[in-house]
Amino acid sequence: MEIKVLKDILSANDQIAQENRQLLDSNGVFTVNVMSSPGAGKTSLILETIRRLKGAVQIGVIEGDISSSIDAETIGKEGVPVIQINTGGECHLDASMTYRALSNLPLQDIELLFIENVGNLICTAEFAIGAHKNLVISSTPEGFDKPLKYPLMFTVADIVLINKIDLLPHVNFDTDAYKKTVKNLNESVEIFEVSCTTGQGIDRWLSWLQNQLRNR
Amino acid sequence: MEIKVLKDILSANDQIAQENRQLLDSNGVFTVNVMSSPGAGKTSLILETIRRLKGAVQIGVIEGDISSSIDAETIGKEGVPVIQINTGGECHLDASMTYRALSNLPLQDIELLFIENVGNLICTAEFAIGAHKNLVISSTPEGFDKPLKYPLMFTVADIVLINKIDLLPHVNFDTDAYKKTVKNLNESVEIFEVSCTTGQGIDRWLSWLQNQLRNR
Repeated sequence: MEIKVLKDILSANDQIAQENRQLLDSNGVFTVNVMSSPGAGKTSLILETIRRLKGAVQIGVIEGDISSSIDAETIGKEGVPVIQINTGGECHLDASMTYRALSNLPLQDIELLFIENVGNLICTAEFAIGAHKNLVISSTPEGFDKPLKYPLMFTVADIVLINKIDLLPHVNFDTDAYKKTVKNLNESVEIFEVSCTTGQGIDRWLSWLQNQLRNR
Repeated sequence: MEIKVLKDILSANDQIAQENRQLLDSNGVFTVNVMSSPGAGKTSLILETIRRLKGAVQIGVIEGDISSSIDAETIGKEGVPVIQINTGGECHLDASMTYRALSNLPLQDIELLFIENVGNLICTAEFAIGAHKNLVISSTPEGFDKPLKYPLMFTVADIVLINKIDLLPHVNFDTDAYKKTVKNLNESVEIFEVSCTTGQGIDRWLSWLQNQLRNR
């Protein structure tokens, strides 16, 4: 009896994610999947980045939310192309939803695409969407134990931003302990500390981004 | 041909949730399902409540997390019965996991049971576990637009706590706008403002709890 060995069979989602990646690459669009808990600062970071790179980098945005278009309206005021995906209850974006949004963006005019995923520290980490990098944002008021309690998110991260460092004097957040836990889960991850409110640390994040764009 | 009309058929999860409720009722255990984003203050609220009601109310706790037993260890130091459920990746507790935890608690010695659900503002709202009340915690640094973006959670809530009001001077949180959005989704919900750090507003929460216990 012949034993069939099935190797490297991609799931339907991973197959579409791979096609998304090819579409992005063929248009020269560097894409960042932005993930975090609700309210950690995904939209604030994207806004601050758009404002700081205006004129220098052509940016596009996909906004993922269960419902509402608040974030897309906010981003749209900055004059960049933006598409809102409403998942209709789903707790994460998947590759297929992302594909439909990509089909509605002028990819040839975009160098840097942010995909703001649904606010969820669990499910979003489980679905590839085709982005080049996974960015995870933690905010200091959430507490420094989150990587221990939601390890998968930090395992799939390429870059981690600790946001709301302006609140450090008012909250219990041990930055060293946090970094140590993240590095134990994922040795190669880069960790930056920022405040989208005061602008502190944003320069280092922008340098990282521009370096990625140069090496596209 | 006879047409079968299937009505009121409970899902497997709802069936077990109903059995959990019967088990809790037969032991006189008032049970609160505590839900929020990661880091909004579920564990802090449970800890503060245990400390303030020590000697007056017999409390038990079920801790739900993807992995780790940090929260159960913290709660256990207060000398109350506690069970940790590790969901092993699942983004929410379900009725069956809850049943297994209930079977390992001395229910006859518990008047008030907190079930701390996984930190997730989406999926936890979709699964009944048998609790008497759904408590949703929002924290001020998350921003006041969360009910618009995660409406189901606020629709299933019986009581909403706005936590971290000590941070109000440092964050952009419009309490009136937040309350209006929540009330638009769910007219009958009660909303309290608290700080687990300073103790502000905790008395009103404790009064509500003790009133519920009296009316068991």
